[in-house]
Amino acid sequence: MSFAALPAPPYFAVIFCSTRPDADDGYGAMAARMAELATTMPGYLGVESARGADGFGITVSYWRDEECIAHWKADLDHKAARDEGRSRWYEHYQLRVAKVERAYGKPQG
Amino acid sequence: MSFAALPAPPYFAVIFCSTRPDADDGYGAMAARMAELATTMPGYLGVESARGADGFGITVSYWRDEECIAHWKADLDHKAARDEGRSRWYEHYQLRVAKVERAYGKPQG
Repeated sequence: MSFAALPAPPYFAVIFCSTRPDADDGYGAMAARMAELATTMPGYLGVESARGADGFGITVSYWRDEECIAHWKADLDHKAARDEGRSRWYEHYQLRVAKVERAYGKPQG
Repeated sequence: MSFAALPAPPYFAVIFCSTRPDADDGYGAMAARMAELATTMPGYLGVESARGADGFGITVSYWRDEECIAHWKADLDHKAARDEGRSRWYEHYQLRVAKVERAYGKPQG
């Protein structure tokens, strides 16, 4: 995983934190399918993701505006994946929707 | 690492992504010291963090308002750690400041 190449703010971030058990149990395939599907959604800007050896992970997806987030949330395949995620893959999760107001980094400055 | 226990939105998130080489080189001790120092800052609400085996990591710290983020940014020990981070520890990083507008999760609802 690596850095998302994003436009200048403002844009929106969906911060998704979750804990997972060790066993894959179909999770990797679903996650890859959803990541691919997200890239086809209107207003999708990029994603950044990391999961530590302890099973705690953070995925931040970036979107042009709230309407695009609502559209992605309403996608039926995504809905089905979330339902399965809640019942089967995620022990616990937390989702936060935030408006990114400024950004900077290295080597960009 | 685990979930931050946060108040109801709105509050602010600082989303910090970075890549690190394998060698620790004093990084772990600095990171622990900064995490501890952050908890003493006014308006600090919590932190969530994950780094994958590939060296890509995401740390999200949460703050009451922009003023508290500015105060934390101005702390001299934090400034020194950031300077050292830029020159010594982080190959690349990206920081985004965002206003969290809503949040939900499991099992909280």
